[in-house]
Amino acid sequence: MSRFLIDRYAPLEPYTPGEQPQDMQYIKLNTNEFPYPPAPEVLAAVNADAAAQLRLYCDPECTVLRQALGENYGVPAANIFTANGSDDILNFAFQAFAGAQKPAFFPDVTYGFYKVFGALHGVDCTELPLRDDFTVDPADYYRRGGMVVLANPNAPTGIALTRDQIERIVQENPDQVVLIDEAYVDFGAESCVPLTARYDNLLVVMTYSKSRALAGARLGFAIGSRGLIEDLERIKYSTNPYNVNRITQACGTAAARFDGYYRSRCAEIAATRDFTAAALREMGFRVLPSQTNFLFAEKPGMDGAELYQALRRRGILVRHFTQPRIRQFNRITVGTRGQMDVLLAAVKEITEGGTPDEKR
Amino acid sequence: MSRFLIDRYAPLEPYTPGEQPQDMQYIKLNTNEFPYPPAPEVLAAVNADAAAQLRLYCDPECTVLRQALGENYGVPAANIFTANGSDDILNFAFQAFAGAQKPAFFPDVTYGFYKVFGALHGVDCTELPLRDDFTVDPADYYRRGGMVVLANPNAPTGIALTRDQIERIVQENPDQVVLIDEAYVDFGAESCVPLTARYDNLLVVMTYSKSRALAGARLGFAIGSRGLIEDLERIKYSTNPYNVNRITQACGTAAARFDGYYRSRCAEIAATRDFTAAALREMGFRVLPSQTNFLFAEKPGMDGAELYQALRRRGILVRHFTQPRIRQFNRITVGTRGQMDVLLAAVKEITEGGTPDEKR
Repeated sequence: MSRFLIDRYAPLEPYTPGEQPQDMQYIKLNTNEFPYPPAPEVLAAVNADAAAQLRLYCDPECTVLRQALGENYGVPAANIFTANGSDDILNFAFQAFAGAQKPAFFPDVTYGFYKVFGALHGVDCTELPLRDDFTVDPADYYRRGGMVVLANPNAPTGIALTRDQIERIVQENPDQVVLIDEAYVDFGAESCVPLTARYDNLLVVMTYSKSRALAGARLGFAIGSRGLIEDLERIKYSTNPYNVNRITQACGTAAARFDGYYRSRCAEIAATRDFTAAALREMGFRVLPSQTNFLFAEKPGMDGAELYQALRRRGILVRHFTQPRIRQFNRITVGTRGQMDVLLAAVKEITEGGTPDEKR
Repeated sequence: MSRFLIDRYAPLEPYTPGEQPQDMQYIKLNTNEFPYPPAPEVLAAVNADAAAQLRLYCDPECTVLRQALGENYGVPAANIFTANGSDDILNFAFQAFAGAQKPAFFPDVTYGFYKVFGALHGVDCTELPLRDDFTVDPADYYRRGGMVVLANPNAPTGIALTRDQIERIVQENPDQVVLIDEAYVDFGAESCVPLTARYDNLLVVMTYSKSRALAGARLGFAIGSRGLIEDLERIKYSTNPYNVNRITQACGTAAARFDGYYRSRCAEIAATRDFTAAALREMGFRVLPSQTNFLFAEKPGMDGAELYQALRRRGILVRHFTQPRIRQFNRITVGTRGQMDVLLAAVKEITEGGTPDEKR
């Protein structure tokens, strides 16, 4: 920190992203990336001709991309806001709809970045405890005098509310923005996008990082009433109008147009998830019921950090959080079936001692 | 605007980017893009293999890219901050080093975004008038009790201060950040990067949009003392850790490593600029002395907006600003020699009537 930083940012505790080792020597199951490459049409869009066009600014309005997204979701392009990853949008939302003027409410166990955005923008944030079984009690979010932020499915628990449960929350907060972060929705939960046409206070935030194999391209988008989208545009045009670059716009458009590829791969991942969850349970793990591309699991009697370290030594990266309520757990990204077999063998070795072969 | 936007952002007047027509029917001389494609090594870096890696998050620390930039500028990677275009950095700087706690000072005629960043972050901004000849009086910036922001060369005037003049400004403000925006420095002005090792309050902001043919890839960076870089990192890790995507990191690294290509092209552009300026002066224009890749010119007795419109009708886009002090001017990007010949013929036709051929 320099002596020039203004006082209010001195106490900030920035978000710690999952490890991104650049040497690629690990089986990476720690940041919920897609285990398959992008669709062939996306690979084809990344070429020297596209690179030659990089000398020109990108379209700040992302016209073609928003059109393609709109066709997939059945909403007009005017109701879609695109950004440099969904973190970009979450940041804008905390700034635009809460700030120092309004509080925000979200679960005690959820995406750890929410409270960082809150601190940055001087938002009074209240973390509402999940139930003992790590589910959200919808009634906790009724008649709140501020912005409601819910990841659905929630992370790192993997548990989802139904669309009906969220609709009730939206109805119970008619004068507040209800932000639903659907980063993981494509692996089995119900999207709230169909509700956005009926509720002007509902903002659904999505990303192409998890289910569209574009984590490294940075593309997030939000769907909501025209008013909310205009507010986000106002912040964008006051910070970084060209926030989605040219190649990302091209990749996102191709991915949106060839959505079938991703839908079938997502179904594959869901099947691998269910297989892996069953195998972990058989080994004595408690695995929360996931509707995402990750599993949140603990082995009673075994320290979560210890399992994390033991896997790391075996070349497998998972995500461990130090927050007291969840420190016995690890969050394990669902990779390919082959990766899961390696993971399960390693877990068996760690938890039962000896090598898997010796146990057979 | 929705009914949910918090009050303080209601009066914001967002920045208006230059037109980015997506149909490509114009000779585009309005947003100071590079008229040549990126270096062959950059084109080669954009391929299907790179696209397949997009499923993985990018390196949030931009390790390889910062290393390559550091080698070019002779500074350690730890003194370099990378971002999603230099607007991203300017925004962070207004937030981190001014905010509601400190004023900021910049010229009345300069990059129009500075005052937008200021308004967004509640900064009390003072615009100090340029001299009558549109030069900056360095003494105006001595002993200011807040952040000093100077584009050098300035835009849209194209006029630069010397490094010595800026060093004096930095010395005269030992307890304030002096931000030098060097977006256009590679077309002939002196960079202040060599000063950053000696002054902990100097932040130099650069972009690969103008002189490195990567406007559409979005890559900006800042060079300064470790403390200032840490402050920017603090804001980045509280908003969007993965703000520079994977392909942009690859393109930026290739561009940095093959810098010679750009240096020779920049020299070509500077020669074309001087040729064009001389030709415009011959036609009776007042052309400010530019050290950039654009010319700022007015024809006494001719309305600036009228010339802009007449050029637009002929398929040539230049940039016109409505700010009273400069509304007789147009800002003309220096393109290829061929594009400048078309421009000069059109200007001749518009200002002298008849076609250029009839006049010969």
